[in-house]
Amino acid sequence: MAEPERLNETIKELLSGGREERLASILEGAHAADLAAVVRELEPADQVRLFRLLDDEHAGAVLSELDDPTKRDLLHGLDEAEVSRILERMPADHVVEVVEELPAEAAEKILDLMEEAKSDEVQELLEYREGSAGRLMSPNFVALPEDITVGQAIEQIRKSKPGDDAFYVYVLDDHGHLVGSVPLHRLLTAEPGTPVHAIRNDDVPSVTVDTDQEEVARLVQRYNLIQVPVVDSGHRLRGAISVGDVIDVISEEATEDIQRLGGAAGDETVLDPPRHVFPRRLVWLLINLATAILASSVVGLFESSIQALAVLAVFMPIVASMGGIGTTQTATVVVRGIALGELTGSVLRRVLGKEMWLSLTTGAANGLVIAVIAYVWKGQILLSFILGFALLLNMLVAAVVGTLIPVALKVFRIDPAIASSVIITTFTDVFGFFSFLGMATLLMKFLL
Amino acid sequence: MAEPERLNETIKELLSGGREERLASILEGAHAADLAAVVRELEPADQVRLFRLLDDEHAGAVLSELDDPTKRDLLHGLDEAEVSRILERMPADHVVEVVEELPAEAAEKILDLMEEAKSDEVQELLEYREGSAGRLMSPNFVALPEDITVGQAIEQIRKSKPGDDAFYVYVLDDHGHLVGSVPLHRLLTAEPGTPVHAIRNDDVPSVTVDTDQEEVARLVQRYNLIQVPVVDSGHRLRGAISVGDVIDVISEEATEDIQRLGGAAGDETVLDPPRHVFPRRLVWLLINLATAILASSVVGLFESSIQALAVLAVFMPIVASMGGIGTTQTATVVVRGIALGELTGSVLRRVLGKEMWLSLTTGAANGLVIAVIAYVWKGQILLSFILGFALLLNMLVAAVVGTLIPVALKVFRIDPAIASSVIITTFTDVFGFFSFLGMATLLMKFLL
Repeated sequence: MAEPERLNETIKELLSGGREERLASILEGAHAADLAAVVRELEPADQVRLFRLLDDEHAGAVLSELDDPTKRDLLHGLDEAEVSRILERMPADHVVEVVEELPAEAAEKILDLMEEAKSDEVQELLEYREGSAGRLMSPNFVALPEDITVGQAIEQIRKSKPGDDAFYVYVLDDHGHLVGSVPLHRLLTAEPGTPVHAIRNDDVPSVTVDTDQEEVARLVQRYNLIQVPVVDSGHRLRGAISVGDVIDVISEEATEDIQRLGGAAGDETVLDPPRHVFPRRLVWLLINLATAILASSVVGLFESSIQALAVLAVFMPIVASMGGIGTTQTATVVVRGIALGELTGSVLRRVLGKEMWLSLTTGAANGLVIAVIAYVWKGQILLSFILGFALLLNMLVAAVVGTLIPVALKVFRIDPAIASSVIITTFTDVFGFFSFLGMATLLMKFLL
Repeated sequence: MAEPERLNETIKELLSGGREERLASILEGAHAADLAAVVRELEPADQVRLFRLLDDEHAGAVLSELDDPTKRDLLHGLDEAEVSRILERMPADHVVEVVEELPAEAAEKILDLMEEAKSDEVQELLEYREGSAGRLMSPNFVALPEDITVGQAIEQIRKSKPGDDAFYVYVLDDHGHLVGSVPLHRLLTAEPGTPVHAIRNDDVPSVTVDTDQEEVARLVQRYNLIQVPVVDSGHRLRGAISVGDVIDVISEEATEDIQRLGGAAGDETVLDPPRHVFPRRLVWLLINLATAILASSVVGLFESSIQALAVLAVFMPIVASMGGIGTTQTATVVVRGIALGELTGSVLRRVLGKEMWLSLTTGAANGLVIAVIAYVWKGQILLSFILGFALLLNMLVAAVVGTLIPVALKVFRIDPAIASSVIITTFTDVFGFFSFLGMATLLMKFLL
């Protein structure tokens, strides 16, 4: 195994020393994935320098491994002839991932510069919706007719020169319909005279070209697949998705969920240029500012109560804060449950029951603790009781909001992870301030 | 493809109608993964009933697909002889995953009841640390000596009857050291007389038995692997990890990060029994209560200022709330960057610079907006300026805390995702209240 960290150091040293020849020979022996990790840490000008030292095939492999923002930066620094020459050496489905990142005009120019067969293949894939199985699949696969023997099959496979990612061959009927699949080890261990239909799997899990990539990922996880055949609406085989692509989807979807829940963009990375991130962060901050003003206007309703009894201002953040954590705990588990396909309609009532039970028990425990502490601290028994009770009520609101908002978003086909703390804590802030200050105001004459 | 949702309905109907015979025949034709999804939604007694209708092999496959809490419940309802009979039919690495969930005493009894060869194999795997490659690997793989021909290799593979998850064969030297791997399609397409060493890959990415499973997952993602060979400290081949197991690891690690960031346990699922979840939720809520009391004691320092000018209490939650979202945005992206291996020591300064730049720009924008709104609302220009400035300062603190705390945790080998909102928002709450109320108190004579 190469040691990526040391490779990193070496390459940076050679770049700053201007020793291009020595560098080129080191790059030649390095794995594309390791080089991609180095490239993303370099300044744009050095990225281009390094890239121009690679042969086209290797450059293509590195390009495939880069994350989208780095890919965009790098493509910006290369000229169109260079890019099209590199893309010609890449498999069509990897070309698609590059072309997607280019401005429409540049993409067209580059496709024009490429040889026609490859360019057509790419354009066909580009017609499928982003995020669909058609966009993700490779149009290269090994297919066999159904009425041949194992010996004939092996002869055909030999001619089609499969790549290192061929683990299955697919069996098609006369009309190109997918009717089965054969894992390679069965061809290897069967007698040459055996008919292929005797060793094929008939019930092959497949997806259609417009299946969503999240659905493909769920299928792969559920049935432990290595490769998913993709068929068109007429059940004709059009391509295959490899498990490596699916792993990338799973990882990207997880990143999206984590970051959206945290109020950041789903595809932000730690090294994104700040200017690029600014508008997306700002949107959520402005939304939060609006919800914070809403919550503070609730406090404003009780300004005269606070004027009369300033200790209310001391306690009120506790009620809001506990509601915020309670609803975040619930929403996080619910959003993840939806993503994993574990929270379905048939168990919603059970989940809501669980969350309400938890909010009542943990709310009672925390309410009791804070009531005792408040009493010891300020010596006002009624106020302490109001504080503990408001906390309990706010936890209950937190459980209901944290469960139902993500579920409702899912029903309306909006990503449930949008139910980030920004949105859900608005409810617990508003309700928390309102219930605590409201009860205190109602009972004000006993408090003063 | 089966239709899991309909299967679900049918099984529940037949269970409640007591039609065990019809049920058994439907179960026979269903995929283990689909049955697992049904089992987890059933009441414990029905889980056991359904399970007893399956033959041992199928029962083992379903057991392998269940999540841990459901597995525990179900095992609790079955007797030890039944469990050991089912486990005997399962591959050793799947047995390990079941035995892990059992109380030590029950595990021992069940292993005693199993046939010795299988039990020994399982006990050997159990000696590896949980979360290590040794625990995750299957001890079954196809290995070839290095000096044979393709024809001889195929003969050997035929004898070893590989399972459907064999995609590579491994080449070992005379001492059992891993020296190469061969994808099956190369054996299939090579001439029988070709020596195996001519078609093997020499540079095989491998891990050792005590490599952490997260590291295995990173390797698979980086190099697009389908299967990872596991060697011992002497580089002798001991097992192989399939990509399916790695996908489970990736998904579990993502769940852990998402849920820990949200202040919930890393392995909680939506259907966990509430009693089981209660103590883990309570811990974070109590910690949050303590931090909320800390923040409110800061407010308490300024009680007399609030008494004099109650509008301070109206505005103060805005400063805290904006800091909270700011630090959550930053920490979320940083935690994910660490998990994906993108935030390494060499780019920390760049990331910190990015976050500080973002906090200053978004902080200035939001500070300006809130200052204008506060001025229009309450008409106090100095107070509006203090509010906007405190917000900006708090955003800066948010950026620094949100970046450095997860990184520091990582340095101390603590999961960075523990830097959940509970922890990091303490800083922005305390600093937000202190800076806003502090500045207002210093300038109080100009505000009244």
